[in-house]
Amino acid sequence: MANFGFSQLTVVAPYEPHWREAQSAVGAEDLLRTARVCASLKEALADCTLAFGTGTLTYRAPEQPVLLLPDLVPVVQAELARPASRIALLFGPEKHGLTREDLALCQRLLVIPTSSWQPSMNLGQAVAVCLYEIGTRLSPPAQNARAEAAPLRTWKSKAPATSAELDRLAGLIAETMQAAHYSPATMNKANRHDLDLLLRRLNLGARDTTRLVGFFRRILWRLRQ
Amino acid sequence: MANFGFSQLTVVAPYEPHWREAQSAVGAEDLLRTARVCASLKEALADCTLAFGTGTLTYRAPEQPVLLLPDLVPVVQAELARPASRIALLFGPEKHGLTREDLALCQRLLVIPTSSWQPSMNLGQAVAVCLYEIGTRLSPPAQNARAEAAPLRTWKSKAPATSAELDRLAGLIAETMQAAHYSPATMNKANRHDLDLLLRRLNLGARDTTRLVGFFRRILWRLRQ
Repeated sequence: MANFGFSQLTVVAPYEPHWREAQSAVGAEDLLRTARVCASLKEALADCTLAFGTGTLTYRAPEQPVLLLPDLVPVVQAELARPASRIALLFGPEKHGLTREDLALCQRLLVIPTSSWQPSMNLGQAVAVCLYEIGTRLSPPAQNARAEAAPLRTWKSKAPATSAELDRLAGLIAETMQAAHYSPATMNKANRHDLDLLLRRLNLGARDTTRLVGFFRRILWRLRQ
Repeated sequence: MANFGFSQLTVVAPYEPHWREAQSAVGAEDLLRTARVCASLKEALADCTLAFGTGTLTYRAPEQPVLLLPDLVPVVQAELARPASRIALLFGPEKHGLTREDLALCQRLLVIPTSSWQPSMNLGQAVAVCLYEIGTRLSPPAQNARAEAAPLRTWKSKAPATSAELDRLAGLIAETMQAAHYSPATMNKANRHDLDLLLRRLNLGARDTTRLVGFFRRILWRLRQ
């Protein structure tokens, strides 16, 4: 991260002894000292408008649109042109990567094209390769300045919904499903998973989301009367 | 190396205990078993026609032409088009990198553009970044990884909803709004207009639409009970 000028690290539910050890590592002290620690992935992604979950296509069929790393930069650039956008690159633990539930909170599956003989990458190397790609190919080369300059607020394009807003909407729809006895309770978890995937696929704006929340609140209130 | 389909590793004057330990590492056994061990860098580069020494510009003035990694592929491609060409990418030891003498055996100094705040890269990450660049951007041969991953991009490409399906869904949602007394009747037309716009903007698939129709049918039925 420090090599390519990225500074905003969030760590989700770190294993304390390892995290303390990492914090004393040489070379990126500031980055680690100012890292945010979150208890859950949902919390970590709350203010993000576009999350890329990294993974391979080798071991599972993807449930969200796949983007190959060499094609990432134009997508990042387009998102940064939207008002109040915030992008996350999400990496899983070294051993097993991101789970299906983790990926359901991501709009896209980001795949580093690797050899089918050895598709699994070392975590640090995967991060380096992704940040090299963005750091060197996103328009101006000094990308610290860029990260801050990017929200050129052109309010004409619609502000994207944050992950927290999508979660709130998903929660309300799930409640509505239950209140309407849409399906047996055993389906609740699977429904919520599908809902997470769907809402992230739809590329909803912040205003869309607010309206839908109001709409489902109203439905829910009526259903409960 | 294995991740990006490279197989010809040469190690120069390795420190024996570490080299034996590396050879037993999981994931790239073949690569390490077939690695060539040379006593000197001169011997290692003997049959190469173009050697790139990797390094940073931060600590020394370059003595050979500098090439930035994002500009490497065209140069590699041109060299590979020459008969009997053979290219080497040379990496120095983790601690101090390549010496001035090492670099004197290279035609070019290859530089990974890194932040001036933290120019020095971890060796494994530097190798990963360089081989990612070549492996994914060199036209055909090293490109097998990409060629395999690319057709998967449209995996389970979802059939788009037809306009008629969207209209059916919009009609149901509009009915639900009214049944839930979402807004005064004078707003019905404006709401329907917004709904038409929204549903078309969302790029819903045919299956999404069918599910949403079922969901809103259920809500509507409950609301009317």
